[in-house]
Amino acid sequence: MVNFKGKHILSGKQFNREEIEHILKVASDLREELKSRPSLDLTRGNILATLFFEPSTRTRLSFESAMLRLGGSVIGFAEASTSSTAKGESLEDTILTVCQYADVIAMRHPQIGSAERASRVATVPILNGGDGAGQHPTQALLDILTIKTEKGAIDGLTVALVGDLKNGRTVHALVELLKHYQVEMIFVAPQELRMPPEITESLKSFGVKIKETDTLSSALKEADIVYMTRVQKERFSDPSEYEKLKDAFILNRAMVEQGKAGITILHPLPRVTEISTDVDSLPGAAYFRQVRNGLYVRMALIALVLGKI
Amino acid sequence: MVNFKGKHILSGKQFNREEIEHILKVASDLREELKSRPSLDLTRGNILATLFFEPSTRTRLSFESAMLRLGGSVIGFAEASTSSTAKGESLEDTILTVCQYADVIAMRHPQIGSAERASRVATVPILNGGDGAGQHPTQALLDILTIKTEKGAIDGLTVALVGDLKNGRTVHALVELLKHYQVEMIFVAPQELRMPPEITESLKSFGVKIKETDTLSSALKEADIVYMTRVQKERFSDPSEYEKLKDAFILNRAMVEQGKAGITILHPLPRVTEISTDVDSLPGAAYFRQVRNGLYVRMALIALVLGKI
Amino acid sequence: MVNFKGKHILSGKQFNREEIEHILKVASDLREELKSRPSLDLTRGNILATLFFEPSTRTRLSFESAMLRLGGSVIGFAEASTSSTAKGESLEDTILTVCQYADVIAMRHPQIGSAERASRVATVPILNGGDGAGQHPTQALLDILTIKTEKGAIDGLTVALVGDLKNGRTVHALVELLKHYQVEMIFVAPQELRMPPEITESLKSFGVKIKETDTLSSALKEADIVYMTRVQKERFSDPSEYEKLKDAFILNRAMVEQGKAGITILHPLPRVTEISTDVDSLPGAAYFRQVRNGLYVRMALIALVLGKI
Repeated sequence: MVNFKGKHILSGKQFNREEIEHILKVASDLREELKSRPSLDLTRGNILATLFFEPSTRTRLSFESAMLRLGGSVIGFAEASTSSTAKGESLEDTILTVCQYADVIAMRHPQIGSAERASRVATVPILNGGDGAGQHPTQALLDILTIKTEKGAIDGLTVALVGDLKNGRTVHALVELLKHYQVEMIFVAPQELRMPPEITESLKSFGVKIKETDTLSSALKEADIVYMTRVQKERFSDPSEYEKLKDAFILNRAMVEQGKAGITILHPLPRVTEISTDVDSLPGAAYFRQVRNGLYVRMALIALVLGKI
Repeated sequence: MVNFKGKHILSGKQFNREEIEHILKVASDLREELKSRPSLDLTRGNILATLFFEPSTRTRLSFESAMLRLGGSVIGFAEASTSSTAKGESLEDTILTVCQYADVIAMRHPQIGSAERASRVATVPILNGGDGAGQHPTQALLDILTIKTEKGAIDGLTVALVGDLKNGRTVHALVELLKHYQVEMIFVAPQELRMPPEITESLKSFGVKIKETDTLSSALKEADIVYMTRVQKERFSDPSEYEKLKDAFILNRAMVEQGKAGITILHPLPRVTEISTDVDSLPGAAYFRQVRNGLYVRMALIALVLGKI
Repeated sequence: MVNFKGKHILSGKQFNREEIEHILKVASDLREELKSRPSLDLTRGNILATLFFEPSTRTRLSFESAMLRLGGSVIGFAEASTSSTAKGESLEDTILTVCQYADVIAMRHPQIGSAERASRVATVPILNGGDGAGQHPTQALLDILTIKTEKGAIDGLTVALVGDLKNGRTVHALVELLKHYQVEMIFVAPQELRMPPEITESLKSFGVKIKETDTLSSALKEADIVYMTRVQKERFSDPSEYEKLKDAFILNRAMVEQGKAGITILHPLPRVTEISTDVDSLPGAAYFRQVRNGLYVRMALIALVLGKI
């Protein structure tokens, strides 16, 4: 029996398929409930603290809106400069302090493992909103909710993951959830930014079918889902290499129209240039619906760890 | 029939007299309702996002208090450094994202036309809280509500607008609303900071009676309302010109007492030195009541665009 | 009859023993009420403005959580850079403005006397959350609530105050409250950072028994309460003097275990190194319970000045 009451949400790796399905079910139910009214009364009187040691407007506002739409309240900070950290306080002491004020904490921090460190001292549930190059489980859950919502089911799909697969935190988290489903993955990346072999091997040993390519257009012909991420110039040791490659990793309308019919396009956002705005009006452009699903997933997690569902 | 549900509030120019009167009526009604209790329940469950790409404590807190006094909730950011803009996201994408979290957006942005750009993609109403040297319609509406509240009626009044009339956004917005009433305007400015001729001509062609002068004391003898703004040193090509003029554009108690009996003094705030604090205790010093009226006007606009009134 | 409705809370010096007892009683009652539900409905519809001209996450979040747990709402700013002060507005004008938006103001400001200045123009109650090297009355009240809660009574206790007693705002505020009780005080400080003689004299003339020492270990043998504060390197004219002394003012587990049985350890937080983390798990380590008491004291003060209790 799945029960998240009092649990910390630290990593996509902590969930089995049953738990993922439960979260998606709760998120979908909340989406239905919000169709008839703007907010619920599930967490009335409870307080969420959003501790953003590293700024992220999108993630912070999503957590805050989630708590408000559940009927609760929010305190917090948007950047470390206004926090006690600037006075030399340890992360553990900050967490122990905020546990006296709030019923649940959503945090983002630049250091890998920080959410896990926080969870070791916390007396209220910690929701990891990103710990440096580490985990970002709510992003992975909203990605998978979007796939399920757009396609009806996840089993049987071919998912292309595109861009910087070497450093991409969201991509690494997403494959950890996707591996619990019968999906085929296509990794589309420049040679220098390929998915780390240990991840590819681990997925294969889990039974996942994987293809690797550096050609986006060919992947688009096979994929049901294309998950775009950015290829950053700074990641290349040889800038001329970047110049050669960059256009091949920008998705535009013409490329989509030559791809598989009904293809769904996702992106963790913010985007800079990696998806042309002429893609936005295509029916398969799901990245802003994906943002909305982030709200439902975070509502689900907050309600679940507070034991309200 | 006036109906603002789902509308964007972008510019003072968008309103006709009937619409202005409707907003003032709703704002006055809300003021009455708040006399017997601190907050209402009109927007319970709704969320306002305050997106301040440029800081403005006064305007931000006024919008936030307005939403809270209506019974709703607030998310947002107070400066661009903590927003996704810092990561290269377009204004349009930020707006499309926040539309997934909030039911109405109040924004301030340093670029002219930014609120209008936002409104073109937004799926929820946009309230322009100032777009650079462009529009600031809620300020103009609160100014005119204050004039009406202080004087009982607007028709028949003589209104002196004082200070930097060349660059003053609030003054430009206010005359756009005032022109719908039978008012006489006196423009009081140093030669270098006169009202732009195209505005003066446009007002005259609309039937407004206008006088221009560079002498504050003479204007004070005729005006029912004096609307002060600051003359900034940086605006003068010749600093010695500023030194000669500046004292003539500082309003003090003695000047008010030699002006027309019952004169009402307004200021968009913040003030620095342009009104002496010895004016504050005069019965005609209405600038902090003006701040309060900003609350009622913003409550009215939020409630109207959400279709709650 | 004690009545705080509409009153400003500016300084620990403003309270007599009856008033302190009343606040502690209300805070304790609120603590009891929060055991059965996360929030109350005492201040529903009211707005607290938190004006932090100087950042202090701990104090700000404590005030905000207090207002939310009372059922009210919050607006505010976390640092002066986003406030109108940056545009040259006077503190008085900022306060007069915010009084139009909020029902009660909690403020922190770097200048001594700023809260008192604010109170002279404010039309709503001001709660001083720290004014530079001046007062910090809510800290002193939460300290004394913690002493009472941990020990059952305050009369009869021996309280050791440790660290920088010369510059320590929290220590100066605390002795102002403690002097109303039958306590013995031990001042434990390096020679350079001793309690200012005028304070010591004033306490003695009030009837307080005082000992002074520079040896923490000896004080620990006599004290029921040890209140730690930090000794900062910057305070010493001779850095080598600091190096000699610093370890003697760091409290660790071994020192506590050689001290008086049942000793209670307090700290205003944030701590850097002045209490070793191996102390945290001792039953007498009360500094995070002290944080929690801050919530109850601030709830009590907000409810009292708003006339809700």
